[in-house]
Amino acid sequence: MKVEVRVYPKEGVLDPQGRAIASALERLGHRSVSDVRAGKIFFLDLRGDDPAAVEAEARRMAEELLANTVIEGYDVLLETERER
Amino acid sequence: MKVEVRVYPKEGVLDPQGRAIASALERLGHRSVSDVRAGKIFFLDLRGDDPAAVEAEARRMAEELLANTVIEGYDVLLETERER
Repeated sequence: MKVEVRVYPKEGVLDPQGRAIASALERLGHRSVSDVRAGKIFFLDLRGDDPAAVEAEARRMAEELLANTVIEGYDVLLETERER
Repeated sequence: MKVEVRVYPKEGVLDPQGRAIASALERLGHRSVSDVRAGKIFFLDLRGDDPAAVEAEARRMAEELLANTVIEGYDVLLETERER
């Protein structure tokens, strides 16, 4: 079962990578940029047929390894919920 | 207007970060992992009201800076298309 885990800086946490990207985009002439936040996305392929169990397992992975929950938030999306 | 740009390794491109994460998850006891691919996600806030123009601008940003299109694919999602 395909699962996406999206990890992003929490509101209020400084995001220097996002700031650097915003500046670079402006230098490239993209004047419409007002903010950029940079995060990570993990495409997991997990064995299991029960969507609730697979989602719970993915949340444990996010808490234990994929996200630093002090400064990052995350969401878990089963791919069945929408097409890519 | 909020836009997400998701960048991921193309099919067939080696993803050492994803492999390392899969191994680490297995060592942590997550036996259901069969594959992990690691990508990046950018949350852009762009000025403009025309969804088609904003999406086109975000695609140019992806081509020019956010993705390395030799080895990475990307998708652009306007946040109006779904709730977070």
